[in-house]
Amino acid sequence: RGPSSEALHLGHLIPFMFSKYLQEAFKVPLVIQLTDDEKFTWKNNLSVEETKRLARENARDIIACGFDVTRTFLFSDFDYLGGAFYENMVKIGRCLNYNKAKEMFGFSGEDYIAKLNFPLVQAAPSFASTFPQLFPGKHNIRCLIPCATDQDSYFRMARDFAPPLGYRKPALIKSSFFPALQGVNVKVSASDPNSAIYLTDTAKAIAKKINNNAFSGGKVDKKEHKDLGANLEIDIPFKYLSFFLEDDIELEQIRKEYGQGPKLPEEEKMLTGAVKKRLTQVLTQVVERHRRTRAGVTEELVDAFMAVRPLLPTKPESWESPRGKMKMDDDKLIDESLIDRVKRLTGREPHVFLRRGV
Amino acid sequence: RGPSSEALHLGHLIPFMFSKYLQEAFKVPLVIQLTDDEKFTWKNNLSVEETKRLARENARDIIACGFDVTRTFLFSDFDYLGGAFYENMVKIGRCLNYNKAKEMFGFSGEDYIAKLNFPLVQAAPSFASTFPQLFPGKHNIRCLIPCATDQDSYFRMARDFAPPLGYRKPALIKSSFFPALQGVNVKVSASDPNSAIYLTDTAKAIAKKINNNAFSGGKVDKKEHKDLGANLEIDIPFKYLSFFLEDDIELEQIRKEYGQGPKLPEEEKMLTGAVKKRLTQVLTQVVERHRRTRAGVTEELVDAFMAVRPLLPTKPESWESPRGKMKMDDDKLIDESLIDRVKRLTGREPHVFLRRGV
Repeated sequence: RGPSSEALHLGHLIPFMFSKYLQEAFKVPLVIQLTDDEKFTWKNNLSVEETKRLARENARDIIACGFDVTRTFLFSDFDYLGGAFYENMVKIGRCLNYNKAKEMFGFSGEDYIAKLNFPLVQAAPSFASTFPQLFPGKHNIRCLIPCATDQDSYFRMARDFAPPLGYRKPALIKSSFFPALQGVNVKVSASDPNSAIYLTDTAKAIAKKINNNAFSGGKVDKKEHKDLGANLEIDIPFKYLSFFLEDDIELEQIRKEYGQGPKLPEEEKMLTGAVKKRLTQVLTQVVERHRRTRAGVTEELVDAFMAVRPLLPTKPESWESPRGKMKMDDDKLIDESLIDRVKRLTGREPHVFLRRGV
Repeated sequence: RGPSSEALHLGHLIPFMFSKYLQEAFKVPLVIQLTDDEKFTWKNNLSVEETKRLARENARDIIACGFDVTRTFLFSDFDYLGGAFYENMVKIGRCLNYNKAKEMFGFSGEDYIAKLNFPLVQAAPSFASTFPQLFPGKHNIRCLIPCATDQDSYFRMARDFAPPLGYRKPALIKSSFFPALQGVNVKVSASDPNSAIYLTDTAKAIAKKINNNAFSGGKVDKKEHKDLGANLEIDIPFKYLSFFLEDDIELEQIRKEYGQGPKLPEEEKMLTGAVKKRLTQVLTQVVERHRRTRAGVTEELVDAFMAVRPLLPTKPESWESPRGKMKMDDDKLIDESLIDRVKRLTGREPHVFLRRGV
């Protein structure tokens, strides 16, 4: 997370909710990087002090997602970078030349050299040896990175350079695009507060934003809608529900009653208004629960998450692949056994959680 | 000091001897950076572990120069960089773009991006705020950097960017070129052990190197030499004596008796052999004294120098400029008052120590 503002919106929460699910299911150690240096480098209006303050504010929102303090390390680049972290940066930096970096990250000759440095900072946490204090004696644990698609280049680079450095390639799980209220192809804009629902929005503001701004895939008039149903591919209320509605059975029901496909015999198609109302309930609950939890995140708790100390190991699984000494195929982005383990440990189909943000 | 080999030669000692003199005269805190990351980045055959080992070996040679442990902090980039150091790096990195860096440091598109990062690492220690633990509450002490001329670009950059960052420009004192035994325009070459005298050389090896390799400015035959004297501009034995002979009166005498200028009435010109013999005595003493001192540098002492802790402040002078609240002219490389202070505190003419390595 690059801390560039105080107020997070719901899209920011997706990778954290997903990571929290994985940590709970597999009892895995988790490292969360706050790239305050990135924000300082990219945004000329921010001071170092301000990015560090925002990092701490963001940390409270992240902690409020419910992470296990005994298995989670949250750090600011400005505070933690050095020692083993810096060694890995420089090692990676000796694999990549400027021409290639330009191509990979779109840098130009006018860009500050601090920007060229940043890919190394972002890639270094892909390797457990960056955190010798967290994983004592375990320098080569494979790392799984849940991230948004726009962060792909950094970790593809980390994968490319893992073999020459003698490290295991990190695995990636990429979060699908979380759209703006205005439509599936619109990016959330920091300059338009109506484009997203923020964790600081009131219940009334949430209802208003959804009713006024959430792009509907419903048909132009009631008659046509009753016959054909909404186009769910472009319907923002349904998209948002697919991220945040916990109950998969209810989601499937809405898909049938609101979406396209054969009209059900005894009933009429569900209207956009009803879906928006349900979404308002769901999001209000998510935001209010988050706010209550965040209020309980004390400064001491933030310090505890940011303290450099050994993390509890994975239990009951060992650090090793469940396939034991079998050779892993480093070119598969997701270890196949993950799907099996989800089934075995949770008793649920993987789509139940993989749907959210994957 | 970039640690790329175990054995230091005499040229390496010059800035340290000079810094030690300054520390003793002014009771100033001193920070010594070991750029192990630079050496790793530039030299493909070195591992991180090896550069760190070499840094520690070099540290013992540096400590043996006689620094005051209560006022000296010696650090490896790999170990210390982070926190405040890294903040300053990124701040400087937001002042410089790639095109400019290319021009200043001669980088090409084929260069590793870790090289682009390095100027920031080298420049950050010019500012006291990089070391908040060493100088608590004193974030804007002016820094004086004794360095070799080839390091000029890094610190000129630091001077250029000090004002926009709100820092005081560091001052530079540049060491003149320490030539190879083969001549004033020859650079010491790591691949030719005969080009320099190493701190590990025996008395016998020193005598042999000086006799066989030290380029003489003496004339082709004895007769011509007696009439004209040696050309001291190109005479390596005399150059070396001007760095290492403590007694300035003796050095002046050699200048007259060996060099050009009017032949003295009662005597003949001194011959190269005699000057080489004197140089052998002087350097053998320097090297042997160094070796004895180095043998007493324990691992614990290295740890003490590298410990992060507040340094003793300057005594009896305060941290402020002796001219008090007078505005300093940041565009003068050397604070004028330095010359006056040398006279007042040491009772000697500044050239006595400024001659060595300035």
